[in-house]
Amino acid sequence: MQTVELMISKTPNRPATDQRHLAECIDLCVDCELACAACADACLGEQELAMLRKCIRASLDCADVCNVTARLLSRQFEPEPQVMVAQLEACARACVACAAEGHRHQESYAHCGICADACDRCEASCREVLKEFALVRA
Amino acid sequence: MQTVELMISKTPNRPATDQRHLAECIDLCVDCELACAACADACLGEQELAMLRKCIRASLDCADVCNVTARLLSRQFEPEPQVMVAQLEACARACVACAAEGHRHQESYAHCGICADACDRCEASCREVLKEFALVRA
Amino acid sequence: MQTVELMISKTPNRPATDQRHLAECIDLCVDCELACAACADACLGEQELAMLRKCIRASLDCADVCNVTARLLSRQFEPEPQVMVAQLEACARACVACAAEGHRHQESYAHCGICADACDRCEASCREVLKEFALVRA
Amino acid sequence: MQTVELMISKTPNRPATDQRHLAECIDLCVDCELACAACADACLGEQELAMLRKCIRASLDCADVCNVTARLLSRQFEPEPQVMVAQLEACARACVACAAEGHRHQESYAHCGICADACDRCEASCREVLKEFALVRA
Repeated sequence: MQTVELMISKTPNRPATDQRHLAECIDLCVDCELACAACADACLGEQELAMLRKCIRASLDCADVCNVTARLLSRQFEPEPQVMVAQLEACARACVACAAEGHRHQESYAHCGICADACDRCEASCREVLKEFALVRA
Repeated sequence: MQTVELMISKTPNRPATDQRHLAECIDLCVDCELACAACADACLGEQELAMLRKCIRASLDCADVCNVTARLLSRQFEPEPQVMVAQLEACARACVACAAEGHRHQESYAHCGICADACDRCEASCREVLKEFALVRA
Repeated sequence: MQTVELMISKTPNRPATDQRHLAECIDLCVDCELACAACADACLGEQELAMLRKCIRASLDCADVCNVTARLLSRQFEPEPQVMVAQLEACARACVACAAEGHRHQESYAHCGICADACDRCEASCREVLKEFALVRA
Repeated sequence: MQTVELMISKTPNRPATDQRHLAECIDLCVDCELACAACADACLGEQELAMLRKCIRASLDCADVCNVTARLLSRQFEPEPQVMVAQLEACARACVACAAEGHRHQESYAHCGICADACDRCEASCREVLKEFALVRA
């Protein structure tokens, strides 16, 4: 078991959503955060930098949004479903925007493709947890 | 003029929304972030700590969400309106949740009241910019 | 009085260093964070983007380091002087590195100059608080 | 290969330090960040909350410092060795402070022990990369 899942299994607070999905989503959020931070940096070093402006912008946003989403999800003490739902939605959208840029450049830049794949996985996982929080909220 | 507004006035990128509202919102987001971080910490030092659990949780979330919102708003290069709208919505909701806790404790703890006021100002400003981004999006 | 200073005046925890310097340093850290985030973004929109690679990298680092420094400084409950000293030192150095880039480009780009000035102010303030924490530590 | 290591292998920028150590350090920083964020939250739900004040403070700091350290390490474009060294030093110290609290409470709270172990691993990895950056700097 990974550290995140282990922590969730030992908290006195009762997670509002499925533990495994939650742990997976947290892991995929930080995976995506780091991929995005590294992709923006890799883009900075490319010859054709001017073509990558939008990719850099989308990556910076996505890294920031993924991080805060992971932070919120790692807290189980009385989460506010309305806040969680909105933050997960923002994260899914940031992943979609960044993945679109990454896939557009993946033929030329492998790092963009790897990053886009991380965004896709993170988005799917956010959508899964989003559904569960939407039920809590009801 | 404050640093943030000065930076916005000198960027080659064209802000998608009203510059003054934007600068104000960024400032109020970081003001709220710091108030929340400081309030969670002040709560930690109070005798009646157990009553403040939820206030601490809400403050930690709000600090994190406000920071990422300020980060996104401080970038003008081709923002993704769908991402901005969702993040501003998450921020407004985090402020509402945290302000509710803060106002509940403000009679006993001045720091909770100051923090709740910062949340109220930040929420109002996010709602203003949200309306403008919603128009961009249309 | 600004929100940060007001919060410090109302915390039950006793700040380890001079309250006014502390509040000022927190404000200058977030001021610098936002200037750096906005400068990296403004650089992305410039024609001569390729010359600004290093400026962008330094700004991204400085924004991140300033934020975490402000976060730590906004907590007064039993700070660990060794941690505070190292983080303030990292912040001062990130400001120096970013200011060097900003000043190098300020003739051509006003946003780089404004950002460099914010870095200079933040560095000076960190060095001031650093001296005070170094005494606490002794 | 994990996403982080994959990204490092595909960047056009040449890492200043050993790639495997670097990737490992980034992973352990975010692992520690999430463990700390979750530990502070788990502490909030414990009956004996008052005993855990310092543990919460140390965890919040450590989570923040680990995150920014991972961010900086995930960028390979012309890093500033002086900044990297200071940030890694701050991270190692934040881990030491947080691990001390965690180990002190691990008999009573499994989550504190898991978190302290994550801090220990992160500190060791930071010290390793720190040695390598110190050589770059020379």
